[in-house]
Amino acid sequence: MKFISIVMGSKSDFEIMEEAAKILEKFSVAYEMIISSAHRSPERTHNYIKTAEQKGAKVFIAAAGMAAHLAGVVASFTTKPVIGVPMRGGAMDGMDAMLSTVQMPAGMPVATVAIGKAGAINSAYLAMQILAIEDEELRIKLLEDRILKAKKVASDSLEIEKII
Amino acid sequence: MKFISIVMGSKSDFEIMEEAAKILEKFSVAYEMIISSAHRSPERTHNYIKTAEQKGAKVFIAAAGMAAHLAGVVASFTTKPVIGVPMRGGAMDGMDAMLSTVQMPAGMPVATVAIGKAGAINSAYLAMQILAIEDEELRIKLLEDRILKAKKVASDSLEIEKII
Amino acid sequence: MKFISIVMGSKSDFEIMEEAAKILEKFSVAYEMIISSAHRSPERTHNYIKTAEQKGAKVFIAAAGMAAHLAGVVASFTTKPVIGVPMRGGAMDGMDAMLSTVQMPAGMPVATVAIGKAGAINSAYLAMQILAIEDEELRIKLLEDRILKAKKVASDSLEIEKII
Amino acid sequence: MKFISIVMGSKSDFEIMEEAAKILEKFSVAYEMIISSAHRSPERTHNYIKTAEQKGAKVFIAAAGMAAHLAGVVASFTTKPVIGVPMRGGAMDGMDAMLSTVQMPAGMPVATVAIGKAGAINSAYLAMQILAIEDEELRIKLLEDRILKAKKVASDSLEIEKII
Amino acid sequence: MKFISIVMGSKSDFEIMEEAAKILEKFSVAYEMIISSAHRSPERTHNYIKTAEQKGAKVFIAAAGMAAHLAGVVASFTTKPVIGVPMRGGAMDGMDAMLSTVQMPAGMPVATVAIGKAGAINSAYLAMQILAIEDEELRIKLLEDRILKAKKVASDSLEIEKII
Amino acid sequence: MKFISIVMGSKSDFEIMEEAAKILEKFSVAYEMIISSAHRSPERTHNYIKTAEQKGAKVFIAAAGMAAHLAGVVASFTTKPVIGVPMRGGAMDGMDAMLSTVQMPAGMPVATVAIGKAGAINSAYLAMQILAIEDEELRIKLLEDRILKAKKVASDSLEIEKII
Amino acid sequence: MKFISIVMGSKSDFEIMEEAAKILEKFSVAYEMIISSAHRSPERTHNYIKTAEQKGAKVFIAAAGMAAHLAGVVASFTTKPVIGVPMRGGAMDGMDAMLSTVQMPAGMPVATVAIGKAGAINSAYLAMQILAIEDEELRIKLLEDRILKAKKVASDSLEIEKII
Amino acid sequence: MKFISIVMGSKSDFEIMEEAAKILEKFSVAYEMIISSAHRSPERTHNYIKTAEQKGAKVFIAAAGMAAHLAGVVASFTTKPVIGVPMRGGAMDGMDAMLSTVQMPAGMPVATVAIGKAGAINSAYLAMQILAIEDEELRIKLLEDRILKAKKVASDSLEIEKII
Repeated sequence: MKFISIVMGSKSDFEIMEEAAKILEKFSVAYEMIISSAHRSPERTHNYIKTAEQKGAKVFIAAAGMAAHLAGVVASFTTKPVIGVPMRGGAMDGMDAMLSTVQMPAGMPVATVAIGKAGAINSAYLAMQILAIEDEELRIKLLEDRILKAKKVASDSLEIEKII
Repeated sequence: MKFISIVMGSKSDFEIMEEAAKILEKFSVAYEMIISSAHRSPERTHNYIKTAEQKGAKVFIAAAGMAAHLAGVVASFTTKPVIGVPMRGGAMDGMDAMLSTVQMPAGMPVATVAIGKAGAINSAYLAMQILAIEDEELRIKLLEDRILKAKKVASDSLEIEKII
Repeated sequence: MKFISIVMGSKSDFEIMEEAAKILEKFSVAYEMIISSAHRSPERTHNYIKTAEQKGAKVFIAAAGMAAHLAGVVASFTTKPVIGVPMRGGAMDGMDAMLSTVQMPAGMPVATVAIGKAGAINSAYLAMQILAIEDEELRIKLLEDRILKAKKVASDSLEIEKII
Repeated sequence: MKFISIVMGSKSDFEIMEEAAKILEKFSVAYEMIISSAHRSPERTHNYIKTAEQKGAKVFIAAAGMAAHLAGVVASFTTKPVIGVPMRGGAMDGMDAMLSTVQMPAGMPVATVAIGKAGAINSAYLAMQILAIEDEELRIKLLEDRILKAKKVASDSLEIEKII
Repeated sequence: MKFISIVMGSKSDFEIMEEAAKILEKFSVAYEMIISSAHRSPERTHNYIKTAEQKGAKVFIAAAGMAAHLAGVVASFTTKPVIGVPMRGGAMDGMDAMLSTVQMPAGMPVATVAIGKAGAINSAYLAMQILAIEDEELRIKLLEDRILKAKKVASDSLEIEKII
Repeated sequence: MKFISIVMGSKSDFEIMEEAAKILEKFSVAYEMIISSAHRSPERTHNYIKTAEQKGAKVFIAAAGMAAHLAGVVASFTTKPVIGVPMRGGAMDGMDAMLSTVQMPAGMPVATVAIGKAGAINSAYLAMQILAIEDEELRIKLLEDRILKAKKVASDSLEIEKII
Repeated sequence: MKFISIVMGSKSDFEIMEEAAKILEKFSVAYEMIISSAHRSPERTHNYIKTAEQKGAKVFIAAAGMAAHLAGVVASFTTKPVIGVPMRGGAMDGMDAMLSTVQMPAGMPVATVAIGKAGAINSAYLAMQILAIEDEELRIKLLEDRILKAKKVASDSLEIEKII
Repeated sequence: MKFISIVMGSKSDFEIMEEAAKILEKFSVAYEMIISSAHRSPERTHNYIKTAEQKGAKVFIAAAGMAAHLAGVVASFTTKPVIGVPMRGGAMDGMDAMLSTVQMPAGMPVATVAIGKAGAINSAYLAMQILAIEDEELRIKLLEDRILKAKKVASDSLEIEKII
C-alpha cells in the first residue's frame, strides 16, 4: 500500500487542509489525515510518523501556523519527503509560519509551498507529482489536469476578454 | 536513465549551487547541471526542460535570485517535481527570491527550500528523498547519513560541552 | 493600429484590472484585454504576446498576484515596454507580488506600479504617457487631466478646509 | 532632439547611475544626466524638468535612496514617463526607497525598477524600450541585445555545465 | 498671529486628521487645515506653504499615505518644523507611508509620528509642545493634560483591576 | 504570599489579557491585575512595581501594543522575571510591539511570548512554569495539563481523521 | 539659558550622535550631551530630564537602538518636544529601533527621524527649526544653510553632469 | 543540585552562547552546556532534556538559527521554563529565527529574548532572575549587578558628556 500522509497541528487547520484531501480524492490517490501537534503531542507525532512510514506513507504533508515546527519535526523522524504548508493567522499574515517552515538547516529539507489555501492545494499536487515519477497512470492524470487548467484559463478569459 | 536536473538562472549562482552537485556526487546520484535564464533565454529553458524530461530527469532543481521566476517557469513546462532554491543578493537578503519562488498559485507547486547555501544543500537532499521512495539503496544511504549527522552533533558537542 | 495590451493571470484579477480598462476607454485609447497565466497557460501567453505585438500592441500591462511571474514572462517574449501590476491577496498584503514583479534582473525591466487598484489605474496612465510621447492629442488630454486633478484637490479641500 | 534625462538625488548615487549612462552610450541613445534633489534643491528640480522637457526629454529616469521622493516629485512636473530607481543604503536595504518610489497614488505613476545596480541598468533598458516604439533602428538593437543575452547564457553555461 | 497648519494629501485622510483638529480645538490652539497633494497639486502645495508661513504658521503637519511624499515636499519649502503623519492603507499596513515619511536625507528632517489615528493625535500634541516652549499658558495646559491622562489610567484600571 | 502580577498599558488590552487571568484562576494561582502605562502614568507604574514586589509578586507579566515599552520599563524597576506580551493593532499586525518588547539590551531581559491572545495565554503558563520550579503541586498540575492537551489533540483528530 | 539636550542610551551611540553635536556647534546652538539608559539607569534618566528641563532644555534628543525605549521614557517625564533617533544594529537593520521609537500611543508623541547617521543630523536640524520659531537669527542661519545645500547640489552636479 | 541547562542547535552557535556561559560563571551559577539539534539529533535532544530535568535542570536555554525549532521542541519535553535565543544568519538577519521561536501556540510558551549576542547574555540573566526568586544570595547579586550597570552608564557618560 502506498499513500500520502497529511498531518496538521491543530483542528483549526482542517478547513484549509481539507482542500488538499479533496484534490487527492479527485485523483483517487490514497491518503491518511490526522491531527497531531509538534508541541502538545510530540510522542503521538513521533509514533504516528514511524507507523505511517511502515504502513506505506511515501510522502508526508505537514501543516501548521505561527512558529510552525510540525513539518521540521516530522522531517526529523523520517527520510521520506516532507511537504510543509504554512498557515495564516500569526504575525505578518503567515510569514512567521513560512519562515519557520522553509528555513530548515542544511541536510534536513522541508519542501515548502505557499501560505494558506493555495499551499494546501499545492501540497497535494506536489505529493502527486512525486508519486507520479513511478506511477504512469497518475502522470497521465496530472498532464490532463494541466490541459484542463490551460483550457480553463481560455474559457475564463472569454467572459471578460476584449480583442481588437 | 534516471537523473536530477539542476538549472540555475545565472553564472553567479554557481558557487552556491555547486554545493547541491557535491551532495549528489557524494551519494552517487546522477545529475545534469546547466545555466538557463527564465527571462534572458526563455526558449533555451523551455527546450532544455522538455529534453531533460524525455532523457530521464525525475526531479528539477531551479535556483534563481531577485524576482526568481525560474522555478515557476520550469514548473509550467513539466509535471515532474520542481524544487526552488531562492538566492541571496536582492532586497531583504533573499526574501524577494523566496516569495517569488514559494508563493505559487494553486495547482502549480514549487517545493521551496531555504535561502542560499542551506537551500542548495537541501535541494539535493530533497531530490534524493524523492528518488529514494523507489530506490532502496539510496534510502539506506539517506538513513546512514542521518545517523552520521546525529553522531556529528554528539562529537561537535564534545568539543564544547560541559556536563555536571 | 496601435493599442495597449492588458494581460491578467487570473479571473480574480479582473475586478481590479477593469479599472485600467475604464481609464483607457475614458481617454479613447485602444486596448485588448485577456486572461492568460504564466504557469497554467504558458503557451497561450507566449502565443498571445507574439500575436499582439505583430498586431500593434505598443505597451503590455501584466497583472498578477502572489509569486507574480506574469510580467517577467511577458517581458521575456517582447522588447516592448511591460508594465507590471502587483495584486493583493498573498503574503504581506501584496509584497510577494511586488517583489516578484519589480526585482527583475539587469537587462530585463518590468515597469512596476503600486499594489492593487492604485497600480491598476497607474498602469493605464503610464501606458498612455508612453504613447503620448508621439501622440500630441493624447499628450494634451493628459495635461488636461492633470489640471482637472489639481482642481479636484482644491474642490475636495473646500469641503473640509479651514483657513484663518 | 530626443533624449533621455537622468536625474539623481545625490552625488553618492552616481556610481550606480553611471551604469544607466553606460548602457545608453552603448546603444548610442542621447541622454542628459544631472544631480538635483527633491528636498535640497526643489526649484532646481522643477526648473530642470520643465527645461528638459521643452528641449526634448522623452523619458525621465530619477534615482534616489531612503525616503526616495525624487521620482514622484519629477512625475508631478511632467506627463512624460518617469522611471524610478530605488537606491540601497537606508533601512531594510533599499525597501524604504522602493516603497517610497512605487506606491504612487492613482493617476500619478512612477515606473519602478529593481533596487540598486540592476535597477539602474533596467532604467536605461526601459527608457530605450519606450523610445523604440517609434524608433525601428533602436528596436532592432534591442532585439539583437536579447539574442546576445541568450547566447551569453549558453556560453556561461558551457563553463560549468554537466550534461549526461 | 501664530497657528498650526494641517495639510493632507487626499480627502480620504480627513476622517483621521480630523482627530488632530479636535485636539487643537480642545486646547484652543489656532490652526488651518487644507487638502493639497504633493503630486496632483504641486503648485498649490508650494503656494500654500509659502503663504501660510508668511501669515504665521509656526508648525506644519502633513499627512499622506502610500508613497507619502507630502511631508518631505512641505519640508523642502520651509524651515519651520514639519510633522509627518503616515496614513494606513498601502502595502504593509502603512509601513510604506512611514518609511516614505521618516527616512528623510540629512539636513531635511520630518518629525514623524505613529501610523494612522494615534499619529494624527500625536501630531497635534507635538505641535503644541513646540508652541508651548514659548507659551506658558499652553505649557500649563499640557501639564494638566498629563495629569488627567495619569488619572484616566487609574480610573480605567479600577474597572478591571484585581489587587490582593 | 506569592503571586503573579499582570500589568497592561491600556484598557483596550483587557479583553486579551483576561485570557491570562482565566488560566491563572483555573490553576488556582494568585495574581494581581492592573492597568498602568509606561508613558501616561510612569510614576504609578514605578510605585506599583515596587509595592507589588514587596508584597510578594514573583513574576511580572506586562502587556502593551505599538511602541510597547511597558515590559522594558517594568524590567528596569525589578530583578524579578518580566514576561512581555506584544499586543496587535499597530504596524505590521503587532510586529512593532514584538520588536519593542523582545529586543532588550544585554543584561535587561524581557521574556517575550507570542503576539496577542496566544501570547496572553502563554504568559500565564510561563509564569506558572517559573513558580512550579519550587511548587510541586503546581508542577503536577502543569504535567496533568500537558496530558490533557495531548488527549485533546487525539480527540480533536477523531472528528476529522481518516486512517487507512 | 536655552539649550538642546542630547541623551543617548549607550556609549556605542556616541560615534553617530556626535554628528548631531557637530551640527549644533556649527550653528552655535547650546547643548548638553550625556549617556543615560532607559533600562540600566532609569533614575539617572528621570533625574537628568527633570534637572535639564529646569535648567533650560527646550528640546530633548534621545537616541537608542534595539528596543529603543529611551525617547518614549524621556517623553513620559517632560512635555517638551522629544526627538527620537533610532540606531542601527538590531533586527532588520534598525527597524526594531524605529518602530520602538515612532509607534508611541496617542497623546505621547516622539518626533522620530531617520535611522542612524542621517537621523542624528536631522535631530539637530529639527531641534534648531523648533528653536528658530522664536529665534530670528537662527532662522536666518537655517535659511542660509538651505541656500548652501541647494548650491552644493549644483556644484556636486557639475562634477558629473552631462547636458546636451 | 540545581542548574541551568544550555542547549544549542549547532557548533556555530557556540561563539555566541559562550556569552551566556560566561555570565553564569561570573555569578557562580551552575550550568550544563551541550549541542543537540532538534532535527539532526531528535532522540539525543529528547533524552538529554529528560535526563537533565531529572538531574536538576531548573531552566532550559535553547539557541538556534533559521527555522529555529529547538526551543519549541525542548518545551514539548518539559514543563520547566524554556528560554529561546534566536541566532542571526538566516533570512532577514535573524527575524526568521525570532518568529520561529516566539510565536509558540497557546499553552506551550518559550520565553524569547533578543536576537544574537544580546539575547545570549539576556538568556543567562533571565535564567538567574528565575532562580533568584528562591535564592536570596543570587537576588542580592543581581541587585548589585544593576547598581554596577547604572554606575557604568554614569562613568561611560563622563568620557563623552558635555554639561552646561
